[in-house]
Parts: sequence; C-alpha cells; structure tokens
Amino acid sequence: MLSLEDIPGFFAEKSQLNLEDYVLLKYLFETDQDPRLAAASLCSEQSTAQWKRPGREEDLRGRFGAKVVELNELKEGQSGVRSQESGGGKNPNHRKIQVTIAHPHHNFGSRLPNLLSAAAGEGPFYCPGIETIKWIDLELPSTFLRSFEGPQFGLKGLRKNLKVHDRPFFIGVVKPNIGLKPGEFAELAYLSWVGGLDIAKDDEMLGDMEWSPLTTRAQVAGQARLKAERESGHPKMYLASITDEVDRLIPLHDQAVEGGANAVMVNGVFTGFSALRHLRKKARVPLMSHFTGTAIFSRLPDFGISSLVATKIQRLAGADMIGLAGFGERMKCPDEEVAANIQACLDPWGPIAAALPIPGGSDWAGTLPKVFQKVGHTDFGFISGRGIFGHPAGPTAGAMSLVEAWEAVKRGVPLDSYAKDHEALKVALETFGG
Amino acid sequence: MLSLEDIPGFFAEKSQLNLEDYVLLKYLFETDQDPRLAAASLCSEQSTAQWKRPGREEDLRGRFGAKVVELNELKEGQSGVRSQESGGGKNPNHRKIQVTIAHPHHNFGSRLPNLLSAAAGEGPFYCPGIETIKWIDLELPSTFLRSFEGPQFGLKGLRKNLKVHDRPFFIGVVKPNIGLKPGEFAELAYLSWVGGLDIAKDDEMLGDMEWSPLTTRAQVAGQARLKAERESGHPKMYLASITDEVDRLIPLHDQAVEGGANAVMVNGVFTGFSALRHLRKKARVPLMSHFTGTAIFSRLPDFGISSLVATKIQRLAGADMIGLAGFGERMKCPDEEVAANIQACLDPWGPIAAALPIPGGSDWAGTLPKVFQKVGHTDFGFISGRGIFGHPAGPTAGAMSLVEAWEAVKRGVPLDSYAKDHEALKVALETFGG
Repeated sequence: MLSLEDIPGFFAEKSQLNLEDYVLLKYLFETDQDPRLAAASLCSEQSTAQWKRPGREEDLRGRFGAKVVELNELKEGQSGVRSQESGGGKNPNHRKIQVTIAHPHHNFGSRLPNLLSAAAGEGPFYCPGIETIKWIDLELPSTFLRSFEGPQFGLKGLRKNLKVHDRPFFIGVVKPNIGLKPGEFAELAYLSWVGGLDIAKDDEMLGDMEWSPLTTRAQVAGQARLKAERESGHPKMYLASITDEVDRLIPLHDQAVEGGANAVMVNGVFTGFSALRHLRKKARVPLMSHFTGTAIFSRLPDFGISSLVATKIQRLAGADMIGLAGFGERMKCPDEEVAANIQACLDPWGPIAAALPIPGGSDWAGTLPKVFQKVGHTDFGFISGRGIFGHPAGPTAGAMSLVEAWEAVKRGVPLDSYAKDHEALKVALETFGG
Repeated sequence: MLSLEDIPGFFAEKSQLNLEDYVLLKYLFETDQDPRLAAASLCSEQSTAQWKRPGREEDLRGRFGAKVVELNELKEGQSGVRSQESGGGKNPNHRKIQVTIAHPHHNFGSRLPNLLSAAAGEGPFYCPGIETIKWIDLELPSTFLRSFEGPQFGLKGLRKNLKVHDRPFFIGVVKPNIGLKPGEFAELAYLSWVGGLDIAKDDEMLGDMEWSPLTTRAQVAGQARLKAERESGHPKMYLASITDEVDRLIPLHDQAVEGGANAVMVNGVFTGFSALRHLRKKARVPLMSHFTGTAIFSRLPDFGISSLVATKIQRLAGADMIGLAGFGERMKCPDEEVAANIQACLDPWGPIAAALPIPGGSDWAGTLPKVFQKVGHTDFGFISGRGIFGHPAGPTAGAMSLVEAWEAVKRGVPLDSYAKDHEALKVALETFGG
C-alpha cells in the first residue's frame, strides 16, 4: 500500500518524459480514496510494486515506474460515466476518475502477452483503493510501433485483390453455420458469390471438424470459388475459419490455402492475439480476426478492457480484416463505440497498414443504408448471414438483395421504392423487414 | 429470433441424451422474457443458429443443437444473485435464471479455442433477450476428457521432486518484481531458498527482458539454486517466467531449462490457454499458469466467465501449478470462490492429474494460519512476495518467517506467542502486522 508521500514518484509531466520510451494507457476507474493516491497505486501495481530492496539506497521507479501524466475527475453525466452501479463498487459516493498513464515499454517489449499483462493484469485489476476499472485506450510511440508487423495485405491489398472500389465489401457468413457437409457448404457459397458477394466465409464456430474437415471444405469451396469467378468475371474470396489449437494454425492455414481458400480467419480472443501475430508472420493470404469472445471483457461500460483496445491489438497483431460488434440493438454496443472501432482500423498509424473493419450483427439488405450512413464512407465490409442464406429465394437472391440495396443507396432512392422492380430486395424486405 | 414454437427443439431430458457426447455448460443470466424462450435462444445462438436451409426439409438441431437440460429461476438472496444491478441490465424486473446446457462436443472437438468460442463467444454474449450472462461452470464427459493431456507432473510429481510432504509448498515471488539485474535477482532467490523456500519464482511481469535476459537470469539463478540445494540438503525450484509471443515459448523454455530453471511459468490468459497446452506438449519441467488477466472476465458476479471455469481450463491445458486469486480483501474474490478453485485443481477428474493450487495476493507469514484454516488441508502453495523480499532482515529471514509460522500452526500455537523466541517471525509481525 502506498502512502501519500509516495505519490510524487508516480506522477510526471509529459514534457519531462521522452515519450518514445512510453506507451500511454488510458483508464477509467472508481475510487473512494484520494484520486491521486489511487492513480499512483495503479502505477505502482502495474510496474515497480516494490521499488527497492530493504536496506539499499535505490529507487527503481525512475527507469521502470509507470507514471500518471493526466488525471481528471468525471462528473455524473460526462462521457463514460453511468449512473447505475456496475461492477460491484461498494461506495455510492465513489469518484469516477480518468487517467492517462505513461508506462515504459522496456518493461514488456514488443510482446503482446507481456504488454497485456502489464496493462490489464493483476496490478490494475486488483489495485488497492480501486473499486472498478476499465482500460479504455492505448497509444504507442512510433519507434515501438515499428517493432510490430501489422497487416500484411490490409485494406489496400484487399481492394486490389478483389477489385472492389468505391463501395463496401459484400460479405456473407454461410448458414446454417454448423452441420453442413462440405459439398452442401460449397454449393451455398457458390450461389452467394454469383449473386454478387465478394467474400463468402465460414462461421466462427467452424474449423477443422470431423463432420466438415477443413481440407475437404477448402477444396470444394475453392473449386466453387473458381467457377464463380469464371462465370461472374469478378475475383471472389473464400475465407476459411482455421480456429484451432495454436500448434495447428500454420498446418491448417497451409491446408486451407492449398485447397483453395484465399483468406483465413481465427477467433482472436480465444486463439490468442499472440497466436494471431504468429500466424501473420507465416500467412500467405489475408487474415481475419473475429470478435467472438471480446464481449466477455468489453461489454460493460465500467469494467474490463474496451473493444477499442482489442481492435488496436488485433490490427497490431496483423489482422487484415477485423470483425467488430456492429450497429444495432442486438450487439449492445453504442454507435460511438462502433464508429471508434471502425476508425481504429483505418486511422494512419505509423508503419501499420489499415485493416478492413467488418462491423456485424444481424445485418441484411434493409440495414445497409443506415450502416453506410453511420460509417460515413465505403471503407468497411458489410456482412450478413441469415439475410443472405435465409433468403427464401436462396443465397443468390440473398446476395443480390445486398447489391440492390447498395444500388439504391448510391442513387439516393429509398429501399422500398427501389424494391418495386428489384425482386431480390423486395423479398428480403418482406421476409426480414418485420 | 426464436418463437415460442421453437422452444421444445432446444430442450431435452438428460436421460434422453448420451451424455458422453455432450459437455455441460452452466450459466447464470438475466432476462425480461419467458425464461424458457431466453434459454432456448441461448442454445440456438451458441449452436445451430439457422438450423435449416430454406426450402429443405431438414433440422440440424438433433445432431448439432445445444439443449437445455436444467432451468431454475433464482430468487433474490439465492446463491449467485446479487441485489445490485451490475452489467447494464435495463429492466429492474428482470428474472435471474440458472441453466445447464448440454452442448454436443463434436461441434468443436477437443480444441480449447473452439470450445471457448462456443461456450463464451458471440452466441451467448449477444443473445437476444439476455441482458447479462455469466458462464459459471463446465463439466466434461470421460471420453472427451481423455483427449486432453492435463498436467504432466501434477501435484504428485511436484511433491516427489521437491520432497515436500504433509505441508504446503513455500513459494516466494522475488521482489522488486522488475528492474533487477540477473545477478541481483539470483542473490535474492538464493537468500530466500536457504531461508526455507521450496520455490523462488519470477514475477508475472518478468520474461526475456533486455535488462534481464532470460538465458542469463536462468543461468545465475540456476547456479544459485544448486548452491542452495547443496547447503540446505533440500531440493529447490527456480520457476522462470517465459511469458512471451507464442512462437517464442518453446525456445524460451529450452533456454530457461538449459540455464538452470527447473520449472517455467506463463500468464495463461494473455499468452492464451491454447499456447499453454502447446507448451505442455513439449515441456520437460513443470508448468505454472498465472492468473493475471483472469479478472477482466471473472471478477464481476453477474457477467463474464467464472474463475472456476478458467481454473478448469488451465488444468485441462496442462498446468502443473495454477495461480489463483486468493483469500483476503485485496483479491476481491469471495472465500467460497477461492475454495472452489482450489478444489477444481485437486478433485479427481478422470485421467487428468491434480494440479497444485497457489492462491495468492498479499500473503505473508501472518496470514498463513488463516489461509491454512480456509483451505482445510496442506495441498496448496503458500506464496508471498513483499512478505519475504520486503522483510527488513532480508529474504532469508523473510523465508524463515513463513517456516516459523508453519511450525506455530502445526503446534497449535498462536503466532505472537511463537514469535517470542523466533526472531524472523517476530520482525515479520512487527513489520507487516499493522
């Protein structure tokens, strides 16, 4: 436990620091202590918890200590503050504090598990005096950024490979998500590609399953892809889910690519962000990281790690496509948070290429105008599952309903007007528009 | 979205199922819907979300659907129910439900990332009608258990190797946790071993750092260990933290072991449970998985994944020693939860060996009697950091204070009486007993 006299050792002015040596970690926390003491404890616990050996004249805080560089108390109603009590805080009078901490990155190096252990490990989450805490943002200096690979293909490479310009990518998650035989799967994928999809993908529950071995699925879906490319005259992508134990990722990537997949997906959180980075170093095709699992630590407003941090980590780890909880009530994610995640995929970030953001969750043709309006530009993947593969006239019509919805958006025509002489869209509106 | 008529397809009697084909997943959730509908949605979303192709006569739920086998509504005050609202539930009248779901394990196989994606992925955490949800327990059938390796050495191997019988293991986390040079680190470890520690370990913030390269640290700490073994006549363990990117784990394990470490540690959550399992398959020494990071999803009572599930996953992945949030106010973990985690390391579990539970958090000599009383037996590791390495008379006295506290416990003597003629314990009580 720190005492008041220890506080100054954990505070610094930004101008006193060589910021190239620090990552900036932003937290929101609640405390019933002196906020400066709590913030100093947060620094101490995440870095030099015991900064000297008894009986020695030394102070390790200078080189190894994390330091508060900004501290603000938030008032009820300010951004990030919720009136309800969440997270088990005991004191109704606790104060809500936002801090930025400069943490020397030589404490962990350019290693994701070590960075995460410092920023979101035992220190911050069991810090004396701090009731609830959420790690909300992360900024990395340019020299440190250069030690990460980032996306290999990125948004630019995806646009080039798939010849998709001036519009969102159209992406379909083949449904039923589990239980189909590889041939059944490939048929649905084929039908969706010829209807206009750029990318047909495995659900995140798929993988190398005994009832749908990856090699077989990649072969038949790969053949279906080539057929769809020949017939449509457009490049297509089969995105295979290779989520598995980490020592199977490279072999499965190779099997998928040799079969005919031209992109692979892993579930970043549960496979591990470090495993994603490992895969990035060996991958020959674009990678998608799916957001499944992110909710367990990001969904609550006052506790855990923000989805923004998770998005940045996945881009750093090298995901070319980043799945995100998207707009709409089902995904329980405020619009501003979705927008911030999309921006975090795209913003200039030193040598780290932009990734394609794919906000998702119960979208279909009818939600495209609103999603486009909320995103504000075309640099995103528009993803649908049941809206394509649950379309009563089949996946070709399902995919066409997305294309037609986009045509309507481009022309500034309301969907129901445009649907009058566009059958696929019309049926989609009738089926899913309830 | 399911309708009421879909419900029966997602319910089953246990007696109707071959339980060897299913894992049992227990959840606590809040809903303002018909609880049976919400529970059926939870099954649907985590398995066959769209269970047929349009226009086909098929129903994939039989083979692939998850099924509710138990459903109970909890009343205020019952186990697991908290009166405060946590997790953003909107409706003060929501109902608190506990369900057990039988999920067919051929949907994911014996792959941790896939199992976790099914049980704690997009399905459960964005399920329509469910406000907040916590995955609280997991049971695996015996045939499925046999496809996991589990601990290689386990509690039994550790007792044999370290010749520790009829008492807890004494473990010290060398402090200052970061910033020491390898030689300084080794000196402190040596001093703690000769004072009576069985295991001196790296803090979870350590790794292969530029200011303390693992190879060098393992060499000097390994030499110090051999010296302490010779002088004390007892086996000692140096437990090296090798947390790093997953493709560095095996090389670092090898460097550590060749240097002189005889156990290694990773931070399970952030390195990834699958990476832990990968390491288990190649490791030549016992493994510890540290709990850092577990809090981000387990600390809240009504949301996320319970620490019990995390403990079981780490044992399944092959950790011989499992670090746990321990007793005491700082760790914000109720006593019953700590006890359940300890038991989950030790309970008979088919072919999966027992692991050594290491509940930790601000323990020192003075807390040993209470921790022993709460555990109720000697099958645990008693771990201390500042209580050993912050002892004013040095780490030898710090380690001795633990040994002396244990002697007092064995004799049924209160610590302050025993301290009268045991100097190390006396100074510890004076220093940390405030």
